[in-house]
Parts: sequence; C-alpha cells; structure tokens
Amino acid sequence: MAPLRSWLDINSRSHFSLHNIPFGIISTAANPEPHAAVAIGDQALDLRVFTQQNGFAALSIIQPHQAVFSQPTLNAFAALGRPMHRVIREYLQSILLAGGPFPDILEHNQTLRKTALIRLQDCKMHLPMQIGDYTDFYAGLHHAYNVGTLFRGPQNALQPNYKHLPVGYHGRASSVVVSGTPIRRPNGQILLDPTAEPKQPVLDASRKLDIELELGCFVCKPSALGEPVRIHDAPEHLFGVVLMNDWSARDIQAWEYVPLGPFNSKNFGTSISPWVVLMDALEPFASTGMRNDAQTLPYLDEKDRNSHYPIDLSVSLTTASGNTSTLARTSAKNLLFSFPQMLAHHSIGGCPFNVGDLLGSGTISGESKAEKGCLLEQTENGKVDIELEGGEKRRFLEDGDTVTMTGVCGGEEGAFVGFGECSGRIEPAIELDFA
Amino acid sequence: MAPLRSWLDINSRSHFSLHNIPFGIISTAANPEPHAAVAIGDQALDLRVFTQQNGFAALSIIQPHQAVFSQPTLNAFAALGRPMHRVIREYLQSILLAGGPFPDILEHNQTLRKTALIRLQDCKMHLPMQIGDYTDFYAGLHHAYNVGTLFRGPQNALQPNYKHLPVGYHGRASSVVVSGTPIRRPNGQILLDPTAEPKQPVLDASRKLDIELELGCFVCKPSALGEPVRIHDAPEHLFGVVLMNDWSARDIQAWEYVPLGPFNSKNFGTSISPWVVLMDALEPFASTGMRNDAQTLPYLDEKDRNSHYPIDLSVSLTTASGNTSTLARTSAKNLLFSFPQMLAHHSIGGCPFNVGDLLGSGTISGESKAEKGCLLEQTENGKVDIELEGGEKRRFLEDGDTVTMTGVCGGEEGAFVGFGECSGRIEPAIELDFA
Ligand SMILES: [Ca+2]
Ligand SMILES: [Ca+2]
Ligand SMILES: [Mg+2]
Ligand SMILES: [Mg+2]
Ligand code: NI
Repeated sequence: MAPLRSWLDINSRSHFSLHNIPFGIISTAANPEPHAAVAIGDQALDLRVFTQQNGFAALSIIQPHQAVFSQPTLNAFAALGRPMHRVIREYLQSILLAGGPFPDILEHNQTLRKTALIRLQDCKMHLPMQIGDYTDFYAGLHHAYNVGTLFRGPQNALQPNYKHLPVGYHGRASSVVVSGTPIRRPNGQILLDPTAEPKQPVLDASRKLDIELELGCFVCKPSALGEPVRIHDAPEHLFGVVLMNDWSARDIQAWEYVPLGPFNSKNFGTSISPWVVLMDALEPFASTGMRNDAQTLPYLDEKDRNSHYPIDLSVSLTTASGNTSTLARTSAKNLLFSFPQMLAHHSIGGCPFNVGDLLGSGTISGESKAEKGCLLEQTENGKVDIELEGGEKRRFLEDGDTVTMTGVCGGEEGAFVGFGECSGRIEPAIELDFA
Repeated sequence: MAPLRSWLDINSRSHFSLHNIPFGIISTAANPEPHAAVAIGDQALDLRVFTQQNGFAALSIIQPHQAVFSQPTLNAFAALGRPMHRVIREYLQSILLAGGPFPDILEHNQTLRKTALIRLQDCKMHLPMQIGDYTDFYAGLHHAYNVGTLFRGPQNALQPNYKHLPVGYHGRASSVVVSGTPIRRPNGQILLDPTAEPKQPVLDASRKLDIELELGCFVCKPSALGEPVRIHDAPEHLFGVVLMNDWSARDIQAWEYVPLGPFNSKNFGTSISPWVVLMDALEPFASTGMRNDAQTLPYLDEKDRNSHYPIDLSVSLTTASGNTSTLARTSAKNLLFSFPQMLAHHSIGGCPFNVGDLLGSGTISGESKAEKGCLLEQTENGKVDIELEGGEKRRFLEDGDTVTMTGVCGGEEGAFVGFGECSGRIEPAIELDFA
C-alpha cells in the first residue's frame, strides 16, 4: 500500500503521518483550558476549535458526542468505544487526505485552518487521561531474565510462575505524569551495607536512580466487579498505546520490596508520552508474539489473533553538559504477554476496570547489551560503566540528566505510526532537615 | 466527662452517639441521588435536606460551601480541611444536644425533623469517597509475625525492614466497595501441588478465601509530586477512619506474589464500612502505640503526639444456615505504625496524594488465637479447624458465608464512638467455560 498523502506538508519521517492520527490533550494561548487534539506532522488539529466551527459537519454520527473534545481528558472520547474511535479517526484522515472527499471542511477553509491547526511547539501537552488505576506488568522476558540472573543467577532467573501468567503489581496512579514533567530524585530508606548487623537503613537521596523503557495501554471500556473480561473481548476494551518511563530507585527498592513488592521505589513519578496512538493505528502492524514454551491456561489463549506490535523503541540520555547518547534500542516484540492477555489475567478474579485505567508492559529489553531497557541491566546493578558521548560515564542517573524515549512502527517513509517522545529531566532531591 | 445527651432518643450502646457524628453517603426514597448525611443513633441526618431547609442558618462560615453535601461523595467536604470538619461536626453536635443553643433549627422544627431525620434502615449506603489511589500497609505486628512464622519460621518471621518502615503495597482502588456489597469468590491461577515438577497451575475458584481485619484512613488534603508530607503536618492530611475487610485469596497469592507482591489475590474486592468516623471524633481516645524497638529514622518520629486509637475490633462469621460465631476480637493498638507515619513514609520520596486516597492499616491481630484477624493465622494456613456455633467448621470461607466486622472506641455508655459494621457475603465463583 502506498502511503496516504495529505494536502498538509508532512515530513516523510514524521511519527505523526496520516496513517497515525494520535489523540492528546493540549492547551494553547487562544484556548488555555486543556482539551482534545490530534497530531498530524508537526501540527496539532485542535478538536475543540474544529468542533466549534462545525468540522464534523460531514459526520453526523459524532454530533451528539462533540462535547467530548472540550473535556480536559480523553476519557469521555475513549468511553465512546472502539467503533466510534474508528469512525472518527478515519473521518479525520479523510479531512486531511490530499484529494479527499471533504475539501471544504478544512483544506479550503482558511479561517478554520488558521485557528484549528497549531504548531506542536505552540501546544502545551497535558496528561491525556484521568487514570483511575495503574498497573505495571513485567512481561519483558529478557528484562525479567536479566534482572533475575543478577539477583538469583541464571538457573533461577525466572520464577516458576513467570511464563504462566503476566506478573504485575498495582502502581500509583497519582504519580503518572506527562512527558516533560521534571522528576525529582526521591529520598528514601536505603540500606547502605547489606552485610552489617543489625541492619540499619539511612534516609538519603537515591543513588541508584534508573529508568524502565515500557509501553502503556489505556482501557476504554469499563468492566464490573466480579465480571472477567474474556480474552476474545479484551481488544475492544483497549483504547491506545503510549511510551512509558517507569522511573525506579533501585536502592530504595532493594530494601523495601520484601515481602509485598516495589512501593516508594516506583511511586515518585512515571512518565508517559502525550499522544495516545489508537489501537486502530497499530492494527496494520499486528503480529505474533514471542513463543511461550509454558503450557499456558486457556483463559490466556488468543487463538489466531495477533496482538503484538513490533514497535522500534529507543532511549537516549542527554547530560547536563548537553551530550546526547543512545542508551538502548530494542523492540516491543520482546514482550511475552500482550495487552489483551494482561487485561484477561488482571480481571480473571473479578477486578473491575474503569475507562482510563493504565496497563504498563514492564521493561522491554532485547538479548544484547545494546538492547537493555534499564540501567540496572546495562550496568549489572552499578558494577559496569556506560560510556557516553563526550567521555562522560554513568552507572545510574545523575541530576540534570534528561532521558528521552521514542518509539515508531513501520518502515515506509510517509507512513510512520510513531509515539513522539517521552522525556523527563532529573532534578536534585529535596534537602531534608530532620532535627 | 459525662456523656453528651441528645434530645433525640439514642440507645446508650449505639456506635453513633452524640460524641461521634460520622459522615456517609446515603440515598433515600425521597432523594435517590447519593448525597451526604451523618449518623446519629439509629437515624441519619440528611445533610442535603438539612442544607436545603437552611439548617446551617446559625453557622455562616459554611454558607459558601453548602453544595458539598449534595455531592455523591464526601470528597468535596473532606477537601474543606480539618478546621472546617471540626466546626461543622461541633455545630451538628450543638444542634442535636439536649438544651443546645439552637433548638429552633431542628429540635422544634417538625417539618425538618420529618424530612431530614431518616431511619438508618431506610437509607441505602454508598461508597463514601471517590478513591483515587488505595494503599494497603502491613503494620499489624502480630499479624506480620504470625504469617512470617507460618512461612519462614519464628527466627525469620519479620523481614529486616519490618520495624524500620511501614511496609505496604499499592492496592486496587477500583475494587474498594461499600459494606453489604456481595463478594464473588475469585477464580485464579492456583498451584495445587507445589512439589510437582514442572510446576503447572490450574485455573479454578479459590479454595483459600480469607478475610483481613483492618482499618482504613482517608486523605483530605492533597500533596504535590515531589513534596513529602512531614510527620508533624500529616494529621492535618487525614480525614477519618473506616473498618476495612481486605478479602484475600491465599492460594492465588501463594503462586502469583513473587517477585512483585500480591495482585489478583487482593483486587477482587475490598469492603469498607459506610460511615467515616472523623479524626476529631477519635481524638479523645488518642494514645501511644506499641513500642518499636528498632531505631527508626527521624522522618517517622511523631515526638510526643499520640496517633493510635485503642479501637475494640471484632469479626464474626454467619454461615448460610444462619449460625453466627465470633472469629476474633482484638484492638487497633496492635499496629506498629500510625496513619501519620504511614503517610509520612508513603510520601517521603515525593509520591503525590489526592483527596480521597485510602490508606489501609494491614491486618490487625493480637497475640492469642482469639485475637487473630485472618483465617490464615487462625487455621495455620488451613491445617486447623475453627469450630463454629451449631457444630460447623471452617478453614477458609465457604459460599454463603457472611463476614461482619465491627469496631468501637470508648467504654462509657452513651458516649461510644463506633464504626457500625463492615460486612460482605461470599457468592459462588463464576463458572468459566473455556473451550
Ligand atoms: Ca516497571
Ligand atoms: Ca491487607
Ligand atoms: Mg514509576
Ligand atoms: Mg482486597
Ligand atoms: Ni488508583
């Protein structure tokens, strides 16, 4: 299929080609209240303005629902359901298509073009969804193996349950922030000498501040307490995907996590990219996942459905002195479980879901060092240096470091379906003054 | 202090004495939209009706905020802050006090009495707060010791971190339900024979369905990302306390919980009592906690402040055949950490809080068998029978069992500050039909 071409000037390497049409929440000088938009090339199409100026004139089905685009989150839009997402996304594609069926709506409407098309650099981005609950999984097989090997050796790297279920934990919804939000280095309890007895922790700024390269997936359909989402229904419950950096403090984690799992080591901030790439935009890339050699139970069996997306991911670090180095490149195909499997498992006991709930994939790593999605793996828990551009080195993050993740699907120029960026800069820890 | 006496007829053993004035969300035949009320004796004072009929005429400070009582949750009321809670609670006490200063507001106002005072049995109770995030701690020292002993023996019962920090995990906010909501037995992955190799789980209804006797505490003051709540400020962030039953599926938990903690074993339902007992109502009972023999860090030091409440707790089980047996009686004084300590720890790394966030205490057990707050402890993980009234026995919960928790502070008749009940009945698991 040749790439769809727009009458708008879109760079052929843009993540936001006409094939994408991701949704986000913007505010602008003219419209300072957060509201909905889609990204196209290096511009946003402001859906509030578009709606107010009758941009959906040729799509009567949306008329009763137009208020969703004036909301400060995408929850109401998401709640319309996947059939409506499809119709609306395809309509917006048709509006932007060169030689499309509705040139009078936008292409030939200079007033609307001037007010509704806004350069991305002039948009302030907001958290796209109100997140009721956030769950982080651990479905990156190589990551789980590498981390398990570090702590338990290669023989016991993977726990016995690992291939039978998508291991996950409840995260902290309040700490999910949009890309660009500064991340303060957390203070917390750290056991500096694990061999000393008695074990006496100190309160200090984390010295092992790390990243986790992940994908996040939003839920768009509620499910009730006691009512599992069946695996064949799960795709209709999924809204779209974002990049996610699950910042992690490894020293805090090591001391706190027994026996109930990670807590303060995770809840000081989780960054997501601002543009939600709809499941429909990813659908053309759907492929099979990794082979799971365990005998998984039927409730996780997707049959012939392809629910994995070979998203090319990369993460880079820019130091305070301005040097940028690529830390890792890998692919989302390194996930052992898909989002439908995560949702089917999460709800099998009756856990209810709300529109806007977020599922994190777990850290995505490949097998080689250059494909490892966190510093814990890359530096073997701080034992090996990472050599950066300009001669700098890192074991964990330093204050002033900016971490940027990107992700994109599709190899064809003009037809990329990408995620833009998810970035965050580390600020120094708060100075604590306990007498 | 002699008990305060009301012109209303209040049973001297009522949990809802004039000393209490707990807040909840009700709906009634006349006002089917959920809205605020306080409980007094065996009645609710409907605050929406009370407000609409100018019941706050003698408290001008509340005038601009009266709409909070027509909201479907207490979040807006909670967000007014503790000084306002104090003023409003004391005003309502003065309205209900025999020989009080404002007899014309309610006592002598037959119209308002008829419409605003509603028998509790005619009120439908709703979840009192919209819960953004829910965290469950593990601060019951004897519970942690007993469970640790079961799985690791008495020498290693408590993990090295246990006395240094309130261990906790993020729970599932969407699964918190109000007392009376039926709880479906969860299906989930269970490893029936942990000794067999390879380890192959089955999907089945939990056979080890358990309770956890806990308190929950709501947050009423937001805190920003990166901004810890200092221990001396923490009490102003706490709204009130409820009873909590953290239903738990021990067989699902045993298989899933490594390495990231409990997940589906907990997220199928957590019940809370409907009436939020304000911190001010508990304040007269404030006392010191257990002695912590660890050298805890200064950020957890409450100095001379008393933040523990010797709430007498009990839990009973009523079988499908109607026999009711007391399972345990214990006291909330068995918590090693207080709610202010939990909040100070939870936020020390910068985790943000929203109004309505819920902190669970962890299971509360005393030292003797009759004081154990979960069946896992009482039956030594299903090895010992519990003898019930009528000759029935239990190791874990059966379908049709109703578990009821109660809690009350104060020994003086006519001055009880109690929580009413938190109950839930077990419904059979969904039949799963995977081909
Ligand atoms: Ca993670
Ligand atoms: Ca618990
Ligand atoms: Mg995080
Ligand atoms: Mg629970
Ligand atoms: Ni939540």
